[in-house]
Amino acid sequence: MASTATLGLAAIAEGQSPPTGCVTAREPFASAGLPAFADLVVGGHDISAVTMTKRAECLVETGMIGPRLLAATHDALERADAEVRPGYDPRTAHLQDGQEPESQQAVAERLAADIASFQERHELARVVVVDLSSTEPPVDPVPEHDDVDALLGALADPARAVLPASSVSAYAAILAGAAYAAFTPSAGMNLPALTRLARDRGIPVAGQDGKTGQTWLRTVLAPAFAARGLKVLSWAGTNLLGGGDGATLADPDAVRSKLASKNRGLTALTGSDTTPLHIDNVPDLGDTKVAWDHVHVEGFLGSRLTLQTTWSAHDSMLAAPLVLDLARLLALAHAAGISGPVPELGFFFKDPWGSDVHDAAEQARAVEEWVLGASAQVGR
Amino acid sequence: MASTATLGLAAIAEGQSPPTGCVTAREPFASAGLPAFADLVVGGHDISAVTMTKRAECLVETGMIGPRLLAATHDALERADAEVRPGYDPRTAHLQDGQEPESQQAVAERLAADIASFQERHELARVVVVDLSSTEPPVDPVPEHDDVDALLGALADPARAVLPASSVSAYAAILAGAAYAAFTPSAGMNLPALTRLARDRGIPVAGQDGKTGQTWLRTVLAPAFAARGLKVLSWAGTNLLGGGDGATLADPDAVRSKLASKNRGLTALTGSDTTPLHIDNVPDLGDTKVAWDHVHVEGFLGSRLTLQTTWSAHDSMLAAPLVLDLARLLALAHAAGISGPVPELGFFFKDPWGSDVHDAAEQARAVEEWVLGASAQVGR
Amino acid sequence: MASTATLGLAAIAEGQSPPTGCVTAREPFASAGLPAFADLVVGGHDISAVTMTKRAECLVETGMIGPRLLAATHDALERADAEVRPGYDPRTAHLQDGQEPESQQAVAERLAADIASFQERHELARVVVVDLSSTEPPVDPVPEHDDVDALLGALADPARAVLPASSVSAYAAILAGAAYAAFTPSAGMNLPALTRLARDRGIPVAGQDGKTGQTWLRTVLAPAFAARGLKVLSWAGTNLLGGGDGATLADPDAVRSKLASKNRGLTALTGSDTTPLHIDNVPDLGDTKVAWDHVHVEGFLGSRLTLQTTWSAHDSMLAAPLVLDLARLLALAHAAGISGPVPELGFFFKDPWGSDVHDAAEQARAVEEWVLGASAQVGR
Amino acid sequence: MASTATLGLAAIAEGQSPPTGCVTAREPFASAGLPAFADLVVGGHDISAVTMTKRAECLVETGMIGPRLLAATHDALERADAEVRPGYDPRTAHLQDGQEPESQQAVAERLAADIASFQERHELARVVVVDLSSTEPPVDPVPEHDDVDALLGALADPARAVLPASSVSAYAAILAGAAYAAFTPSAGMNLPALTRLARDRGIPVAGQDGKTGQTWLRTVLAPAFAARGLKVLSWAGTNLLGGGDGATLADPDAVRSKLASKNRGLTALTGSDTTPLHIDNVPDLGDTKVAWDHVHVEGFLGSRLTLQTTWSAHDSMLAAPLVLDLARLLALAHAAGISGPVPELGFFFKDPWGSDVHDAAEQARAVEEWVLGASAQVGR
Ligand SMILES: NC(=O)c1ccc[n+]([C@@H]2O[C@H](COP(=O)([O-])OP(=O)(O)OC[C@H]3O[C@@H](n4cnc5c(N)ncnc54)[C@H](O)[C@@H]3O)[C@@H](O)[C@H]2O)c1
Ligand SMILES: NC(=O)c1ccc[n+]([C@@H]2O[C@H](COP(=O)([O-])OP(=O)(O)OC[C@H]3O[C@@H](n4cnc5c(N)ncnc54)[C@H](O)[C@@H]3O)[C@@H](O)[C@H]2O)c1
Ligand SMILES: NC(=O)c1ccc[n+]([C@@H]2O[C@H](COP(=O)([O-])OP(=O)(O)OC[C@H]3O[C@@H](n4cnc5c(N)ncnc54)[C@H](O)[C@@H]3O)[C@@H](O)[C@H]2O)c1
Ligand SMILES: NC(=O)c1ccc[n+]([C@@H]2O[C@H](COP(=O)([O-])OP(=O)(O)OC[C@H]3O[C@@H](n4cnc5c(N)ncnc54)[C@H](O)[C@@H]3O)[C@@H](O)[C@H]2O)c1
Ligand code: NA
Ligand code: NA
Repeated sequence: MASTATLGLAAIAEGQSPPTGCVTAREPFASAGLPAFADLVVGGHDISAVTMTKRAECLVETGMIGPRLLAATHDALERADAEVRPGYDPRTAHLQDGQEPESQQAVAERLAADIASFQERHELARVVVVDLSSTEPPVDPVPEHDDVDALLGALADPARAVLPASSVSAYAAILAGAAYAAFTPSAGMNLPALTRLARDRGIPVAGQDGKTGQTWLRTVLAPAFAARGLKVLSWAGTNLLGGGDGATLADPDAVRSKLASKNRGLTALTGSDTTPLHIDNVPDLGDTKVAWDHVHVEGFLGSRLTLQTTWSAHDSMLAAPLVLDLARLLALAHAAGISGPVPELGFFFKDPWGSDVHDAAEQARAVEEWVLGASAQVGR
Repeated sequence: MASTATLGLAAIAEGQSPPTGCVTAREPFASAGLPAFADLVVGGHDISAVTMTKRAECLVETGMIGPRLLAATHDALERADAEVRPGYDPRTAHLQDGQEPESQQAVAERLAADIASFQERHELARVVVVDLSSTEPPVDPVPEHDDVDALLGALADPARAVLPASSVSAYAAILAGAAYAAFTPSAGMNLPALTRLARDRGIPVAGQDGKTGQTWLRTVLAPAFAARGLKVLSWAGTNLLGGGDGATLADPDAVRSKLASKNRGLTALTGSDTTPLHIDNVPDLGDTKVAWDHVHVEGFLGSRLTLQTTWSAHDSMLAAPLVLDLARLLALAHAAGISGPVPELGFFFKDPWGSDVHDAAEQARAVEEWVLGASAQVGR
Repeated sequence: MASTATLGLAAIAEGQSPPTGCVTAREPFASAGLPAFADLVVGGHDISAVTMTKRAECLVETGMIGPRLLAATHDALERADAEVRPGYDPRTAHLQDGQEPESQQAVAERLAADIASFQERHELARVVVVDLSSTEPPVDPVPEHDDVDALLGALADPARAVLPASSVSAYAAILAGAAYAAFTPSAGMNLPALTRLARDRGIPVAGQDGKTGQTWLRTVLAPAFAARGLKVLSWAGTNLLGGGDGATLADPDAVRSKLASKNRGLTALTGSDTTPLHIDNVPDLGDTKVAWDHVHVEGFLGSRLTLQTTWSAHDSMLAAPLVLDLARLLALAHAAGISGPVPELGFFFKDPWGSDVHDAAEQARAVEEWVLGASAQVGR
Repeated sequence: MASTATLGLAAIAEGQSPPTGCVTAREPFASAGLPAFADLVVGGHDISAVTMTKRAECLVETGMIGPRLLAATHDALERADAEVRPGYDPRTAHLQDGQEPESQQAVAERLAADIASFQERHELARVVVVDLSSTEPPVDPVPEHDDVDALLGALADPARAVLPASSVSAYAAILAGAAYAAFTPSAGMNLPALTRLARDRGIPVAGQDGKTGQTWLRTVLAPAFAARGLKVLSWAGTNLLGGGDGATLADPDAVRSKLASKNRGLTALTGSDTTPLHIDNVPDLGDTKVAWDHVHVEGFLGSRLTLQTTWSAHDSMLAAPLVLDLARLLALAHAAGISGPVPELGFFFKDPWGSDVHDAAEQARAVEEWVLGASAQVGR
């Protein structure tokens, strides 16, 4: 998805492709105070050696992107690849022979220094960190997650590793003064101590878990049934997907985070607890995600109706434009001096921070109003 | 649908069934200034001799309604049947042997007198006429449809029949001072001269063509795609249905009105002209309507996604509660002194009068705001 | 399902309903040497006190069966209820206070005596036992399951319970000289020692796990793809159901038997191992089973095609006529002196005994040929 | 489709791609007396100047075929293009200024001479003509279509044009002694006089209208319902497609041939007349054909079940391998001295000549038996 977003940004910036699928390309966003697509510069952290350029080449082979588009964006991809630094991999961090174990504080400072140097080198007004890494299993809570001082103490101790990798990255964003968005269901910034810290240090944050396909559709449909006075009895669903995300979610631990975050909104919107949901790894589908939903609804005089939906989409093609949107919107939030969770960005997330609103239409209205307000604040 | 609405009203009024599927049973409507379900009295015009009681018995035989519910509402159905008067059937109006042809003015006055007598007999504050009759073919326009005086002149001429039956009924509602809602795509009140007359005489009117199933779903989904910046390329659909409506729409003329009114909103919402749509009469499905839609969408970098929906519902069960809603809402409009088309009631219609808004979520918001305003006006 | 089959048999025997859904009602079965529907008499074992008459009344309340049909079959249901004897429930068998524990041999002899007495009382030529009880979890294998003598020894020991309930019933059928069909995935007759015993004692047996809906559809479609030279890459599926079977299969242990038996044929037919499958308990669906399948297929030059199927049916309505078919076919097998597994009855089962054929069309041909052969043998 | 078949043949012949989707690549065909893929040589007639090489390039651009595959087959495509001669276009045939109108006899002789020269040049044992041209509207019958002598007379008359283009081509095949297969629903060889002529002159012919997708699926499913004793009440369907075939079928005349040939088998198999079917031109789908079917079935005790299928496939990818199959099978028929319609090739056609069998499984068995018999005849 990172590769798709980077390639797409280059294509849009250079006028090779229209910004279809970008929320911020339409009004009122298009004329609001957001940085231009062409002003964004891409860098990042990764623990894999496979470059975005390489991944983009695979997209051509599987027919997802035409050879002409790859050629037109090749240089931009290589420029972005040159800005990728090694991420933090807890599985290997302690394995270097003869080395002193590094504290998570030291790791975070290294990541933060990478961000600062990137910002300086490109003379950027600000940096937005978006977590696009593989979904982690749910974390086992420890007291340090709830208390800033206890957390800072534990981070300094090389013998401890109280944070999952995604939260170390989130902490690094705070250290670097960078705005932050969580596109994954991983813990990331979503620990009370880190959220407090972000707010205290004036960092706007938004999350969590990009609402791109089936979940988005559900948050479009469920409020519509409610507006009709119709009662959802059950909402059953299945997801089939391959690709990197499919393989990651084949792990029963990793999938638990995902299923929980996918069902939360649905239960809130429908009041029904009968929401069985599955995610299956079907490697031959590649990046295509197919989702089937079966909605059973009670109507007038106890009558029943059913709605079935089948969704078929390239997952990363849905997600990538929203990543660009989030970068632009959080840049505005940062410029406007907003700190802590931005509930009005809930439109983009399965599990919106700071908000109980899941209704997609209501969320769309909220983010439109917000962008006008924030733009006014920065004098645009 | 008239029978289902009548039976359901009785079941709700007597606490036999919850008002599931009624928009006005939920907040903010429930505590607004609408007449109570229990205060509504049912009467009507029909050209068929089959009573609503008889039709309700068929609903039991086909398993749509339990025998207990029929027993509990039987008396109410018979009371309503006793209030049904002969409608106007242009195919037979001129066939009575040896009779002078009646002018349409005379017919309308007879229908209006039925309404007035019904209102008096039951000491009703007001009457709302809802057109629930069979869909008519599109009308051939004549100049009288656009000019009140010309129309009134033509109506008085026994040799002419310038109005289709639905419009004669609409004119009768005006004569009787009754509010009016058009649940069908027939011409009804939707001729410029009649709309003008309704406005002049202080009659609130709303229409047109109940938005109950597939079309409703489309006006939920299409704006959601737009909010995501996704571009609908084509939206193809098919409807299968049996029952009375299925048989009526098997007529290529009648179906033209329906198809036109179903597609109007979709084209407005998506900008796409590739919206092939079919309605097939499948008698073995009875009152069940099955609708399949295939939506082809362009996303980021020219990628494609598809959404398919299959909707299966008892058509009259979807429509009946909305008929009760419209009766209550137009009663409020009448009480509040509103005259002419009420655009805020567009939520209920495929082809909303006085409004270009098709987005179901926006319409839901509009009608909620409207009910609060109108309630305030009547001091509730 | 037992109630539906019993009610349906009565309806068919008395000419109230055509035998739609019965394989043996069409040619060449209809004119083969099978007992007439009207000659079948119903009895059974159950561990629940809820009668079939009571269950049939529920079918009316949920709209599955008309009140008229219930009235017409009420007496036949009560006659069948009077022939139901207490089954064997291992969970309670040892719980009677102060009682000596009964050996499984003794239990089986009691069940066999019930069968013999039923046969005598009704002067029946033969009895066919069909296992229609709740699905059991998979059994843990013990050596006695593979060896007739060891099994008989263990059965005689009151301290042991080597067989699950379904196998005790199967053993009882052997003791009573009754033909046997396994409509469930439970162990039943499907232990090597019992199968051997059945063969030795001249008992025809057929199984296993009725192939009624989704699995049947898969064994129709998969061979068709193969005949076209098309390569199935993955076949993913989901089942939603409520009712008694839904509740039973909500137990992760019970569902394991079912999923295994559902997938075996598919893997054999397609060669693909990517066949994720789920069964969800959705109580609001009642007896309706909804199954969605997504088939991903490779075609010419590596191109891809997908087929999705959605199946919606009343599960017991699919199964019941096949139960009547099996009773008739096994009666013929018994009359023809066939003993042990009858592979030609594989058409009826997810997991056919004595056969590797899963292709539904090939199975249909096989059973047609078989019925002609067996009929010839009994001189019809 | 011609381009896809030609490209695919080259890919298979040169071992670049497995023959997935070819019926004749599996047993018993693979070891029967069919010409090898590598022994086939491609030529043809077309009325368009767009070469197959050009069309194959488009396949790459739309992601249907990888650039590597195109490169590997480029030379073979160009060789085939060099063997394409101008076809007969009745719309332009008489328009050449100052020219004598040519008789259809003369046209057919020209086409036959092209075939003979092609055969000679490549030293081929035989030629098989497969009609892959655009679907024609149904023909208005004239007496000459039923009588060989009358037909030959009319063909010789330059003032008349009694045959549609597809039938002139079929007649040319007869003149050239070439076997013939009709992949389209056009009249082609399917006029009594031409069929008689083919039989008389020892030409094997097979048709009609390739059974590749939805219709194939229907002829798989409908017999399976029948084998279960289940009664199809209605079978409704919709096809969405773009591409050349979509544009052609947007013409209400052309689509009539197609719809008729698609529904014939279904009615024969199910006995139901309620089979509404639509074909919509949806240009944005390109070569992808999406077909939705809704099957309503009566089961036990009047219960209802529904099966819905959604099929999505690249139409030409389904058809092309069957074209190669037909070339191989008709070559065998020709070698075996079979003349006239070959009913055993019905597997490949919506409207099988010389046969009433539509059941796909039965057809698969028939063609397998046939290939063994015919192979034996040619000593293989
Ligand atoms: N529609 C969507 O695609 C969608 C929607 C919502 C959420 N998401 C989430 O977005 C994330 C990315 O999805 P994807 O399809 O791009 O997955 P992917 O597997 O293709 O890519 C994940 C990347 O994260 C890197 N990574 C893993 N651990 C890391 C670490 N500790 N530090 C830095 N990098 C690390 C991997 O090396 C890899 O490059 C997933 O968590 C997914 O659940 C995706
Ligand atoms: N979901 C829905 O059911 C739905 C949605 C939108 C619109 N509609 C429209 O509502 C209307 C009614 O649908 P239905 O299913 O009840 O149909 P129906 O055929 O069961 O009933 C129509 C009734 O209208 C009566 N009628 C016909 N001409 C008349 C006349 N000139 N005057 C008085 N009565 C007349 C008929 O006798 C009959 O009783 C149709 O026009 C339909 O298109 C229905
Ligand atoms: N389409 C189908 O319905 C279908 C298809 C294949 C298999 N099956 C299998 O058929 C079986 C019956 O299904 P159902 O829907 O009728 O279930 P159900 O739950 O309605 O009925 C099961 C019956 O078995 C009885 N029972 C349980 N344990 C018993 C024992 N030890 N001895 C005697 N009786 C016992 C229960 O009391 C109950 O009456 C299930 O195992 C199911 O998996 C059903
Ligand atoms: N799955 C399938 O693709 C499928 C299945 C069954 C039948 N068919 C039929 O196969 C035919 C070809 O389909 P396609 O997708 O390749 O269509 P297409 O429109 O891409 O190609 C048709 C070709 O026929 C040529 N042509 C037209 N008239 C001609 C004439 N008089 N003489 C010689 N050439 C002529 C055109 O120039 C064009 O090159 C159609 O009739 C279609 O209905 C296709
Ligand atoms: Na929240
Ligand atoms: Na087997």
